[in-house]
Amino acid sequence: MLFITFEGPEGSGKSSVIKEITSRLQNDGYQVVLTREPGGTPISEQIRNVILDSKNTMMDARTEALLYAASRRQHLVEKIWPSLKEGKIVICDRYLDSSLAYQGYARGLGVEEILKVNSYATEGTFPDLTLLLDLDPQVGLDRIASNSGREVNRLDKEKLSFHLLVREGYLKLSERYKDRYQVIDASSPLEKVIEDTYLAIKKRLGK
Amino acid sequence: MLFITFEGPEGSGKSSVIKEITSRLQNDGYQVVLTREPGGTPISEQIRNVILDSKNTMMDARTEALLYAASRRQHLVEKIWPSLKEGKIVICDRYLDSSLAYQGYARGLGVEEILKVNSYATEGTFPDLTLLLDLDPQVGLDRIASNSGREVNRLDKEKLSFHLLVREGYLKLSERYKDRYQVIDASSPLEKVIEDTYLAIKKRLGK
Repeated sequence: MLFITFEGPEGSGKSSVIKEITSRLQNDGYQVVLTREPGGTPISEQIRNVILDSKNTMMDARTEALLYAASRRQHLVEKIWPSLKEGKIVICDRYLDSSLAYQGYARGLGVEEILKVNSYATEGTFPDLTLLLDLDPQVGLDRIASNSGREVNRLDKEKLSFHLLVREGYLKLSERYKDRYQVIDASSPLEKVIEDTYLAIKKRLGK
Repeated sequence: MLFITFEGPEGSGKSSVIKEITSRLQNDGYQVVLTREPGGTPISEQIRNVILDSKNTMMDARTEALLYAASRRQHLVEKIWPSLKEGKIVICDRYLDSSLAYQGYARGLGVEEILKVNSYATEGTFPDLTLLLDLDPQVGLDRIASNSGREVNRLDKEKLSFHLLVREGYLKLSERYKDRYQVIDASSPLEKVIEDTYLAIKKRLGK
């Protein structure tokens, strides 16, 4: 029925926002499938483990891009497409735009190249609505560092300059895909971020 | 110096031939790197485990194709390209042509589509010499069944009709890529297969 994706850096409060939004939409009577990338199915989770394994420092950028595309493909086939067909709202924590911002833009593989590899995986499925939780990367990294409960993975270890490029990439994507993008200021208090996000989704649902 | 790949069905004696050929070439004074796909590096081996896991019966054909391409990319970057640069002979058990024959042809994903995904992974690196150990698939499957020491993996479980298509795909590839292909009759006794293979390689080495 509606394919919603959340994008933004680690530390943007994405997980907390998604959890709360899912529960609000369910209270409103919607059937909501909550999922994430890379992952979302057993096979995709196996691929996720390879991508995020902090020992895999030798991973080439193109290998990484192909693994994300593989994980995405399986996720679409097994979970996203069937759920949309059943009339459900699918909320996905990261999707195609993460590959475009991280690999295409920040790692310099080229947004068009990543789009091409992914078009083989997605057969042209874009989200109906993409919520970008936009945040100064330094603020995000500080939040992660002070959150001792969360494990630091391979991507967190990238330099600040990399995360600055990721943000730039996302903002460019939000201009290119104006129709489906909604940029949310994630430096606001969590309650405000949740409220802004909820209103954007309700507007898209026409209610 | 020379990039040699071995292709053909399971049960064709490929592993035994490769082992013997490697040792002969080393005796002749060549520096030989022996490797395999999917796999060949720690990251590629992790990807291999996902592909060949017999529990992963839900794997979509495009997911599989993207995983093979990812594994291949890492293998090229970490092992094949550096070894060729050092002047070594690289012998690889399966490579691009396996994807073309199994996914592109037998699974019907299209040889051109698989070539396109792989051109992103390989940046156009084809083998100098491809040895196709050609065999009636039924003979290969019978050999596997009688070899109790070898574990049966997800691909072995495919129907005979699939393996017949794989063979057809390989033979078409051997026509398309005449210059680098050498078809070896793998129904011969092992000693003869080894001898034919060895002579083909020595010829290519110009000795």
